[in-house]
Amino acid sequence: MHSKKLKEILKKLEKGQLSAEEAWNLLKDSTFEDIHFAKIDHHRTKRTGIPEVIFAPGKTEKQIMDIFKRMYDAGSDILISKADSSIYGKLKKDYKGLKYHDSARMVVKIQGGKRKAPSGLIAIVTGGTSDMNVAEEAAVTIETFGGKADRIYDVGVAGIHRLLAFKDRLINADIIIVVAGMEGALASVVGGLVSVPVIAVPTSVGYGASFGGMAALLTMLNSCAPGVTVVNIDNGFGAAMAAYKMLKIKKVHSP
Amino acid sequence: MHSKKLKEILKKLEKGQLSAEEAWNLLKDSTFEDIHFAKIDHHRTKRTGIPEVIFAPGKTEKQIMDIFKRMYDAGSDILISKADSSIYGKLKKDYKGLKYHDSARMVVKIQGGKRKAPSGLIAIVTGGTSDMNVAEEAAVTIETFGGKADRIYDVGVAGIHRLLAFKDRLINADIIIVVAGMEGALASVVGGLVSVPVIAVPTSVGYGASFGGMAALLTMLNSCAPGVTVVNIDNGFGAAMAAYKMLKIKKVHSP
Amino acid sequence: MHSKKLKEILKKLEKGQLSAEEAWNLLKDSTFEDIHFAKIDHHRTKRTGIPEVIFAPGKTEKQIMDIFKRMYDAGSDILISKADSSIYGKLKKDYKGLKYHDSARMVVKIQGGKRKAPSGLIAIVTGGTSDMNVAEEAAVTIETFGGKADRIYDVGVAGIHRLLAFKDRLINADIIIVVAGMEGALASVVGGLVSVPVIAVPTSVGYGASFGGMAALLTMLNSCAPGVTVVNIDNGFGAAMAAYKMLKIKKVHSP
Amino acid sequence: MHSKKLKEILKKLEKGQLSAEEAWNLLKDSTFEDIHFAKIDHHRTKRTGIPEVIFAPGKTEKQIMDIFKRMYDAGSDILISKADSSIYGKLKKDYKGLKYHDSARMVVKIQGGKRKAPSGLIAIVTGGTSDMNVAEEAAVTIETFGGKADRIYDVGVAGIHRLLAFKDRLINADIIIVVAGMEGALASVVGGLVSVPVIAVPTSVGYGASFGGMAALLTMLNSCAPGVTVVNIDNGFGAAMAAYKMLKIKKVHSP
Amino acid sequence: MHSKKLKEILKKLEKGQLSAEEAWNLLKDSTFEDIHFAKIDHHRTKRTGIPEVIFAPGKTEKQIMDIFKRMYDAGSDILISKADSSIYGKLKKDYKGLKYHDSARMVVKIQGGKRKAPSGLIAIVTGGTSDMNVAEEAAVTIETFGGKADRIYDVGVAGIHRLLAFKDRLINADIIIVVAGMEGALASVVGGLVSVPVIAVPTSVGYGASFGGMAALLTMLNSCAPGVTVVNIDNGFGAAMAAYKMLKIKKVHSP
Amino acid sequence: MHSKKLKEILKKLEKGQLSAEEAWNLLKDSTFEDIHFAKIDHHRTKRTGIPEVIFAPGKTEKQIMDIFKRMYDAGSDILISKADSSIYGKLKKDYKGLKYHDSARMVVKIQGGKRKAPSGLIAIVTGGTSDMNVAEEAAVTIETFGGKADRIYDVGVAGIHRLLAFKDRLINADIIIVVAGMEGALASVVGGLVSVPVIAVPTSVGYGASFGGMAALLTMLNSCAPGVTVVNIDNGFGAAMAAYKMLKIKKVHSP
Amino acid sequence: MHSKKLKEILKKLEKGQLSAEEAWNLLKDSTFEDIHFAKIDHHRTKRTGIPEVIFAPGKTEKQIMDIFKRMYDAGSDILISKADSSIYGKLKKDYKGLKYHDSARMVVKIQGGKRKAPSGLIAIVTGGTSDMNVAEEAAVTIETFGGKADRIYDVGVAGIHRLLAFKDRLINADIIIVVAGMEGALASVVGGLVSVPVIAVPTSVGYGASFGGMAALLTMLNSCAPGVTVVNIDNGFGAAMAAYKMLKIKKVHSP
Amino acid sequence: MHSKKLKEILKKLEKGQLSAEEAWNLLKDSTFEDIHFAKIDHHRTKRTGIPEVIFAPGKTEKQIMDIFKRMYDAGSDILISKADSSIYGKLKKDYKGLKYHDSARMVVKIQGGKRKAPSGLIAIVTGGTSDMNVAEEAAVTIETFGGKADRIYDVGVAGIHRLLAFKDRLINADIIIVVAGMEGALASVVGGLVSVPVIAVPTSVGYGASFGGMAALLTMLNSCAPGVTVVNIDNGFGAAMAAYKMLKIKKVHSP
Repeated sequence: MHSKKLKEILKKLEKGQLSAEEAWNLLKDSTFEDIHFAKIDHHRTKRTGIPEVIFAPGKTEKQIMDIFKRMYDAGSDILISKADSSIYGKLKKDYKGLKYHDSARMVVKIQGGKRKAPSGLIAIVTGGTSDMNVAEEAAVTIETFGGKADRIYDVGVAGIHRLLAFKDRLINADIIIVVAGMEGALASVVGGLVSVPVIAVPTSVGYGASFGGMAALLTMLNSCAPGVTVVNIDNGFGAAMAAYKMLKIKKVHSP
Repeated sequence: MHSKKLKEILKKLEKGQLSAEEAWNLLKDSTFEDIHFAKIDHHRTKRTGIPEVIFAPGKTEKQIMDIFKRMYDAGSDILISKADSSIYGKLKKDYKGLKYHDSARMVVKIQGGKRKAPSGLIAIVTGGTSDMNVAEEAAVTIETFGGKADRIYDVGVAGIHRLLAFKDRLINADIIIVVAGMEGALASVVGGLVSVPVIAVPTSVGYGASFGGMAALLTMLNSCAPGVTVVNIDNGFGAAMAAYKMLKIKKVHSP
Repeated sequence: MHSKKLKEILKKLEKGQLSAEEAWNLLKDSTFEDIHFAKIDHHRTKRTGIPEVIFAPGKTEKQIMDIFKRMYDAGSDILISKADSSIYGKLKKDYKGLKYHDSARMVVKIQGGKRKAPSGLIAIVTGGTSDMNVAEEAAVTIETFGGKADRIYDVGVAGIHRLLAFKDRLINADIIIVVAGMEGALASVVGGLVSVPVIAVPTSVGYGASFGGMAALLTMLNSCAPGVTVVNIDNGFGAAMAAYKMLKIKKVHSP
Repeated sequence: MHSKKLKEILKKLEKGQLSAEEAWNLLKDSTFEDIHFAKIDHHRTKRTGIPEVIFAPGKTEKQIMDIFKRMYDAGSDILISKADSSIYGKLKKDYKGLKYHDSARMVVKIQGGKRKAPSGLIAIVTGGTSDMNVAEEAAVTIETFGGKADRIYDVGVAGIHRLLAFKDRLINADIIIVVAGMEGALASVVGGLVSVPVIAVPTSVGYGASFGGMAALLTMLNSCAPGVTVVNIDNGFGAAMAAYKMLKIKKVHSP
Repeated sequence: MHSKKLKEILKKLEKGQLSAEEAWNLLKDSTFEDIHFAKIDHHRTKRTGIPEVIFAPGKTEKQIMDIFKRMYDAGSDILISKADSSIYGKLKKDYKGLKYHDSARMVVKIQGGKRKAPSGLIAIVTGGTSDMNVAEEAAVTIETFGGKADRIYDVGVAGIHRLLAFKDRLINADIIIVVAGMEGALASVVGGLVSVPVIAVPTSVGYGASFGGMAALLTMLNSCAPGVTVVNIDNGFGAAMAAYKMLKIKKVHSP
Repeated sequence: MHSKKLKEILKKLEKGQLSAEEAWNLLKDSTFEDIHFAKIDHHRTKRTGIPEVIFAPGKTEKQIMDIFKRMYDAGSDILISKADSSIYGKLKKDYKGLKYHDSARMVVKIQGGKRKAPSGLIAIVTGGTSDMNVAEEAAVTIETFGGKADRIYDVGVAGIHRLLAFKDRLINADIIIVVAGMEGALASVVGGLVSVPVIAVPTSVGYGASFGGMAALLTMLNSCAPGVTVVNIDNGFGAAMAAYKMLKIKKVHSP
Repeated sequence: MHSKKLKEILKKLEKGQLSAEEAWNLLKDSTFEDIHFAKIDHHRTKRTGIPEVIFAPGKTEKQIMDIFKRMYDAGSDILISKADSSIYGKLKKDYKGLKYHDSARMVVKIQGGKRKAPSGLIAIVTGGTSDMNVAEEAAVTIETFGGKADRIYDVGVAGIHRLLAFKDRLINADIIIVVAGMEGALASVVGGLVSVPVIAVPTSVGYGASFGGMAALLTMLNSCAPGVTVVNIDNGFGAAMAAYKMLKIKKVHSP
Repeated sequence: MHSKKLKEILKKLEKGQLSAEEAWNLLKDSTFEDIHFAKIDHHRTKRTGIPEVIFAPGKTEKQIMDIFKRMYDAGSDILISKADSSIYGKLKKDYKGLKYHDSARMVVKIQGGKRKAPSGLIAIVTGGTSDMNVAEEAAVTIETFGGKADRIYDVGVAGIHRLLAFKDRLINADIIIVVAGMEGALASVVGGLVSVPVIAVPTSVGYGASFGGMAALLTMLNSCAPGVTVVNIDNGFGAAMAAYKMLKIKKVHSP
């Protein structure tokens, strides 16, 4: 709910133009909009600093389109993650200015001009070419929020010289997102090279005893490089969100 | 290796008082000290911003004491994690000014005066009383590094009003470490209440289908609150390290 | 077997019009009907208070149609769970008054007029929109049995204010069914807010380390909110059955 | 917090003898008492209908005794679950009227006279003698709350006639708690015999491929007898809590 | 290798018409035939009493047809298990007298007249209709070997009276094969009712926490009914083989 | 209940010396004896052909001794499995003629003279010396029931010549019980050498990725040698029971 | 990078025709080529003795073709593993002399004439026909590198005589690669027969409790035959690589 | 059996001083000695090139001492692995020249003078100090067999410069054994640095989600560095055996 609309309601309540109950009903909708199968959280941006995001899997196309419409009408910036190109095909008939990022599998709609992001550079590093989809999900999310991403792809530990060749760019970053499947060892090596936070994203890339990303996940959780934290398998979006929040730390408390 | 010692070596090399090979042997020791069963990484502080830490489990008391001695002689601040009180009992015979944190199971030795930590307040929240050991490991680590920790213990989700009563302190923090066993749901709820980074630490507290912390770990990895990252089960130290690194982000790159 | 038919057999036996063996053969069929690949349990309604239900997966369309016919001929109310629309398409050619609930994936045929259900209101709460299919399976089951369901969808814990906004409706319910995938934390939070029984249904919604619903299942089993019980992953029908039986508790024994 | 104390605070606030902030501080303590490592939830009884319970594992004896003291001082009935006899030995030096239930491993202290429980009989059925500890945890909990428990032990499915011999007592119950380890099949068989709710408690009794109760847990979750719900492995207390809440369902809503 | 052919080789060797090496090469082929990608074990019948069986999954259609041809040419009876109808479609163009058992998914070719099986009746019992495919695999295997199978389907434990109604037929059997998915409890109950060997076959029927048959498998392995043995998930063929071998026990050793 | 006692009751009932209800109460006890925490199944011998067995783990010494006393008084042969020597030490003070088998960890008391077992020889084969405890549990069980066991220990597959050296004794057996931990491959190799039923017992012997017997269990379940069936990890008793039942197959039905 | 090109750069640097930075940029490309989504490791051959390999799964066809082109242009021999025939279809339009190995699912392009491999014979043994694809992946890899492979297929342990018939060829090999699914016992038996290194490759062949190759993997890891090492499930390529490296051991150090 | 003894038997047989059966009985003992609970494989050295090894866990002290005696009497070199110091204490009373390696937990008895090992240097690398026990098991095994081990301990990937400082010694080795717990990433990094075979040994060092070595095991199996093979968790002995066999490869077959 836009602040403007919120103030109007409160003024009307003050003036007695609205009863307490009427105000409540309007206000309740102001923090989230109830369309039965979804409670759209328009207030989330204010509360958590993150725009509206629709996680596509498990929702019907109709549900996605309904939620999109409400968000659009509320003037929100919108991001659909893990989206097939077919939903993009349908949405672009009705809305202008949509962008579909193929490898990231994301639909993005910016309404309010370029978002002002916190300072800081986020390096995104992958073990292999096959981890690129998840890495792009992180990169596109960061860029949608106005941030800067430095992509360093296919530098897995089996050829450590490839990684070391990019040591300058790694050290230059404020936060590093490491995206790796198979044995997922890259997070530990990067964590030992730099002093900035490392967010590890295991991917489901691999076969056999990788068990859908379980091997990389366990590797990253057991990392002996302190300061490495982990998100869910293939969760590039979550890693970008965590990085974004780290950049926004205010540190008003002196030690 | 102290900078002073390093400069001496380089000067001697310049003056020809040391051959290149002799200098190398001294320098090699300057980045890590090789005592056969351990390569002590005196350089880690410079490289990653983190003091010397000895992870006790799996090491014999003799090994711990040998490593401690080398670190002590190098003038380092030292922290032994997951340490029994018996190792503390032995060390305090030889060294003064050691402190043993009983619930955190940590031995701490500060040599260089109070460390100057980055600004910022780290809240540490637990689901139950039984999660306190792991939480204290995080809190003592933060405080050893000169940081500020705000302990909010036993506010699990089964009595959500207990958590909400501390909402002000949660919102006031720059980073929140959530420590919870059993179902580990606290991380998601906290992650939805605040806009700062949340580091989730699953604990092995629980029984039956908690499978030694597996249940809490999976809960936290699957959190639908974006911005939550996870460390290993019972890894309070790792969470503190990650938080410390987040506070040190420099953000020199403008967006 | 209808009571009427049963009485006829017993009367004939009394009058000697049937031998004991002939009576037995008829009676045996009266508790269940044997069509080789299925023993249809017409007696279950009497024994457990629950109508005839056909669990579709793993059965051929022909088997489902054969079982349906026998139940229909016996005058039973019939419910087919986890049914594709194709089986509905075939059945509706032969039977009138069938209803297909798309999101619940259920075929329903009521023969005996509106069933008189026990008093009581069952709230059905979901974490997200994607959990709706399982929630609808529960809701349609309850309504088919004549009960009342209050649907409160998409109120997951990552935005706890959405849930708290419905606190009145939660407290108003006699039983709450919580349907949630991913981390499944909703059951614990709801369990801490209310004093009524909570039945938790983990769903297979999620990805990566949700392992097909395993994460939500473990979360719910480890819930520290006492009074939460759990059913199988995606088992909306089972949760509805359990709730229905709870409402029918007679409590004739004084304490 | 006793209602009496609560009313006093509110009266003083009304009369201006307390500022709003002073009242809040007193009231905050009235819903839970903060003793740093624990937030004792004195209000839980009112909110959820369940007395104070201390889950012993993972807490030090000192913590348990401190929490016990606060609860005792607040006039609560107290129950310590999964408690060693040693904690009982220490507590009984300071408190009179404590009871230790050896097989249930519970310490019980009743302060307010016999609790008036809801009507209803709860049968507790075990597969074997070794499941008795968990069953007694359920039974003692029920009886502490003033309820009636009917113990039917060692009637596992490998000798189905033993179970059938107790069919009358099973049918007579309002709710049945089934406690079984090893293959845990008893819950399904009981669930097929009766029309009342069945709460299944898997136990860690067994060896080899029982994997600490995992086998029984999976069996019970997959039960084809609708209306069976499941709690955590060895969680007799939780099953009793769930049963207690089921008996208290008010059913004010007519269908 | 037919005995006739074997004797010829040996006679020729005796008469010096074959060198030792030539004989060996012929004989080697007589125990198994080497067609590079398969070593067809024509001798297995003699060694283990079991005809030639082709396990279809993982083999190309061409490989199956090649192996079939060799077996056919050797005069063997042949059984293809877990076979699609398409392979049957191709084979029946070239071979007469093939039979395809649809629900068992088996192709059968008998060449040597009706096989004389050992005495004994094998009851095959299933928990549900959906377990029928696996049960039929067992039944068809038994009948192909000349044995007698008594099918008792859909008598799962959730309606124990259905099972008890067939108690006579259960007691009448020499061996019972119990086929059940979901919770797999049927094996324990049957094992407690009879004194004959029970072979339990878990099936992959189920959903959610049945984990592809794992739940039923664990249940059966943990059965407290002594004398129950278990085969792999969905392995109806293996259960039939085991039963067949049990019927052939000679017991020449007196106790 | 001895047949004699049973006949007396029935005669008294016939003569009117007992009411129907009195008779029932006596008869109910005749099938099992109810000592609250255990329902002793004196009838099991008649029903399943197996003597009284007490599974010790999870029972208190007092419970074991109480159950033992009832069985002893009923004149049963008694076998306590997985029993510590301490329970033997206590029992032998009160009862004469007990035998404790150290490596099998079994207490045996024979009351009725040597049991007449069915003909047949059961070979018990182990992979290694460490599997001997479980093998002895099987062997002692068989011998207690009057059967004949042929022990062939430490013939694991890593030295296949050791196994082949015993081929004659393997072929000579009517049934083979294979006991093996670690990789458990012995069952498949034995299954391929003989035509008799093979009962595989995985043991918890091993370390690392043997996961407490899981590795051997999976190996045996996946055996490509048809006719191999499996029991629970370390369940030597169960294997002996299954073998015993196989020897008793009557095969009255001609094919 | 060809040595020739490398020398040119260094000469130019010596002569001052290139600045240090220019040289670095050229040299950086010489160890790997950066095409954004991939860092092609042209240097790997020199460093590890292994040609260029493209692991196809998870890469788009376009990515594979781009990487192929760069490798081709660099004059490398190229091997694409786990490749569909469609990618072969596309590549062969642009490149001559490609070979597609259907059962190995490999595309091979040799540019530099027949590679000189180290001496030594590698036997490849499979348990069944269905393991052939993985075995062929190993065999084709070995032959592409100029080595010799001896294929011995379908000699699983359930018919141990089939394996023993090939004992001469097994003993004749320098290294043996054992490829087996289901129970995977073949590696242990082979490991006990020979004195050379055995590399075990579990395959995903099997069903039910084979859990996608997990059963075979655990069997092989727990092998009691010392000297058996294991690679990932279905990783025929990795086994070939390991064998190739073993043949290249130089052993310049005398003992 | 010593060759001398073997020849004597054969001569006697030739001269008719022994019947065929008597010779067989002596010869059977010559390949392995049967002491009931163990079949001691004196022939293994000849067959596999590996001395006698006793794996201690699961064997009683008496069994170990009996097996030791037979091996000693046969003149074998003997190695007891994973042995407590108590068994050493007992053995050294009866035997001279035993050595106990404390950190390797091995008892070694050399009888035949220094063993002539194949040329070659085996580097043993550990991730941390806690992995040393397993590494020493490998090193002592190698040295017992007369080989050369180069110990490089505590060079885990979190401080990659520590590892790179030893690059020369890594490249100098013929085979590298990598021993690592926690995330086990060291094997991949080493595998990418060298061209020789790498044998990876996961250890059970770690906590939480390391699941007793499972995490390191999966990491190593999924290594993207080709040529890495894996042995069981904590199996230092097995890795040494594999390395020893690799050094003995004869490579008589030219390519």
